[in-house]
Amino acid sequence: MRAARYYGKEDIRVEEIEEPVCKPGQIKIKPAFVGICGTDLHEYLGGPNFAPVKPHAVTKETLPVTFGHEFSGTVIEVGEGVTGFEIGQKASIQPTIYDGTCPACHRGLENICYNGGFVGLSGWGGGLSDAVTVPANYVLPLPDNVPLDIGALVEPLSVGWHAVSQSPLKKDSNVLILGGGPIGISVILALRARGCGYIIVSELSSSRQRFARHFGASHIIDPTKETDFVKQIRSLAGGEGVDIVFDCAGVAVGLEAACQSIKARGTVVNVAIWEKAIPFQPNDLVFKEGKYVACLGYVQQDFIDVIKAISSGAMKPGDMITRKIALENVVEDGIKTLISDKDNHVKILVEI
Amino acid sequence: MRAARYYGKEDIRVEEIEEPVCKPGQIKIKPAFVGICGTDLHEYLGGPNFAPVKPHAVTKETLPVTFGHEFSGTVIEVGEGVTGFEIGQKASIQPTIYDGTCPACHRGLENICYNGGFVGLSGWGGGLSDAVTVPANYVLPLPDNVPLDIGALVEPLSVGWHAVSQSPLKKDSNVLILGGGPIGISVILALRARGCGYIIVSELSSSRQRFARHFGASHIIDPTKETDFVKQIRSLAGGEGVDIVFDCAGVAVGLEAACQSIKARGTVVNVAIWEKAIPFQPNDLVFKEGKYVACLGYVQQDFIDVIKAISSGAMKPGDMITRKIALENVVEDGIKTLISDKDNHVKILVEI
Repeated sequence: MRAARYYGKEDIRVEEIEEPVCKPGQIKIKPAFVGICGTDLHEYLGGPNFAPVKPHAVTKETLPVTFGHEFSGTVIEVGEGVTGFEIGQKASIQPTIYDGTCPACHRGLENICYNGGFVGLSGWGGGLSDAVTVPANYVLPLPDNVPLDIGALVEPLSVGWHAVSQSPLKKDSNVLILGGGPIGISVILALRARGCGYIIVSELSSSRQRFARHFGASHIIDPTKETDFVKQIRSLAGGEGVDIVFDCAGVAVGLEAACQSIKARGTVVNVAIWEKAIPFQPNDLVFKEGKYVACLGYVQQDFIDVIKAISSGAMKPGDMITRKIALENVVEDGIKTLISDKDNHVKILVEI
Repeated sequence: MRAARYYGKEDIRVEEIEEPVCKPGQIKIKPAFVGICGTDLHEYLGGPNFAPVKPHAVTKETLPVTFGHEFSGTVIEVGEGVTGFEIGQKASIQPTIYDGTCPACHRGLENICYNGGFVGLSGWGGGLSDAVTVPANYVLPLPDNVPLDIGALVEPLSVGWHAVSQSPLKKDSNVLILGGGPIGISVILALRARGCGYIIVSELSSSRQRFARHFGASHIIDPTKETDFVKQIRSLAGGEGVDIVFDCAGVAVGLEAACQSIKARGTVVNVAIWEKAIPFQPNDLVFKEGKYVACLGYVQQDFIDVIKAISSGAMKPGDMITRKIALENVVEDGIKTLISDKDNHVKILVEI
C-alpha cells in the first residue's frame, strides 16, 4: 500500500510498504482525508522533534514513520474481540498514543501521558496511507450528517475545544485570542459553539484576519499597528480587560500582553508549544491574582463533544478546508504550500 | 500621641503627632502589638515602593505615613453609626484599603482593588502609634481565648491562608513550599490546620529550616545541597512530583524548579512579589497541563478563618513571635535586627 513516510528533516517519501495486519482489539481504517498540521511542518523544516529517533516508549518504533495524525476514514476490518463497529462505518481517529499505566493515565489524563505520542508521528502508521490499524477505542464514529472531509477537522477542532474546556468560560466572558491560525480558529469555533459573545482576535496577517472574522471573531486587532495594545484591549473589553486570553501564538511579546490584558482574577490559557524560555514578570499576574493555565492536545471527551457540535450545527467548520490535494503531492502541494503561503490557508486536506 | 513615621529610605522617625479623630463609621483602636513585615524592610532599605510619594488614590496622603500594618489592639472609641462594638473589645485589623468602586471591588475582590493600599503603608495612620482610626469593617473581633500578641499574627497568617484557599488543596495533596520565612511558615500552618499531610520545605538557612520543621514541615530540603533538586522532590513525593508548589521565595531558579516539580495537572501558587522579569519556559507547564496561580494578600474571609483556626486550636502560631520590643526601639531592635539577623527571627512584635 502507499504511505507518506518521514525520514527526517526535509525528507518525506511516498512509497510502497506492507499493509498492516489488524490484530485483536484493533480496527483497520482506510483513511479518507488527512489534515496537514503545524507540527508536520516543524518536523519537516527542523525535525525530528516528536518523531522518534530512538524507539518510542509505547510504539517501540523509530524513523521512518508514516505521517498524518489529523484524519478520518472508514472501517475496513474489525479485529478479534472488538464489538460495536461495522465495516463501512465512517470515523474520526483520536491519534493520542498513551501507555495506560503511568500516573497521568491512571487519572484519565491520556493527553499528558508521561510516555505519550501520536499515531502519525510516533509510529503505529498514520493517516497518510491506504490503511492504518489502531486500538478500537481510538475510533470515534461519525454520524451520517458529518461527511468525511469534515471528520478530518475533528482533531484540530478538539485542540481548541479542549483549551476552552480548561478555561473558566462563562456565558458573559469576553475573550482575547492571540493568533488567528488554524488553532486560533478552532478556539473561535469552540467559543462560538459554547455561547461566548465577544471575541477579540489579535493577528497581523490580513488573510488570517479575514478568516478569523469569517469564523466568528467580534473584533480584529493588528498588534503591529497599536501604539498601546493593552490599553486598546482594555478599552474594547469595557475598560478592565478580558476574562480570558487564549495564547495560540507562543511568542514572548504575546505572553506579556496576555498577562497585562486580563482583568482582575482573569486567566491566560496557553495553547502554544514554545521553542525556548522567554522573559516573564509574575507581578503582571500577582497584582490582579491572574492564572496561567497550560493545555496540551485533547482528551476523548473533546472529540465526542466536537463531533456532536458539528452534527448539531453548533459548529460549522467546513470553510476551514482551503484545498484538497492527492497523497502523491503531499510535499509539493501540501507542506511546501503551507510553508510559503500559510496565511492564505487554514487546512489543506490530503484526499487518500 | 507617639507614631513611627516613614519619611523615605532609611528614615523612620518616632515622633509626636496629633491623635486622629474618630469619624462616623470608624472605630478608634489603641494598637497593642504590631508585627514588622518584609514589606516594611523593603521600604526602609530601598523605598519608597508602596508608600505614596504622590497622593494615594484612596487616602489622598503622601509621605510621611505612619507604619505598621500587622496589628492587634483594643477598641477605645466607636464612631457614629457603628454598631456591634464595645469599648475594650480586642481586635485584629484587616489593613486592606480599597476604593469600593472599581471593577475588582464590585466583584468582592478588595485585595486586588485597582486603587488599593494598606493602613500602615498608604496612609490613614498605622499600628505603630498610640491610636489609629479605621472603617468599622476593618476591625475583626478576637475571641477571649486569643491574646493580643497572637492577634498581631493574624495578618501574616491570612496571607498563607489565602494562598491555600486559592490552591486546589485536597486532603491527600502533597505540597512543596519554596522558602521558609514568615510567609512560608504561614503557609505551613494553614496547610496543617486544613489537614494537609505531607509538606516539603525548600530552604537553605539552617535557622529557618529549624523553624519550618517546628511548625510542621514533614521534610526539609536544602536546594544548594541537591545535585538534582527536581528529581529529589519527585522521589520524596512518590515518584511523579507534588500536587502543589507554594512559591514564597520569588527567585528565578525557584520558578523553574517549581514548574518542573509538579505532577501532571499540578499547580504552582505564587505568594511572592517579584523584583524583575525572569526566564520562564511555558513548556515546563504545557506537557503536564500545569497551572500557575498568582495570589495577593487576603480577603476578609481569610481573617475570619484564621481567627477561628487559632481560637479552636487548629493553628498554634505563638512560637512565631521571636522577640517583643518597644516602639521607641522599632528601628534599632526591630528593622535593623531583621536586616542583619533575619534567619533567626520569624516575627518581631512591637509592643505599644
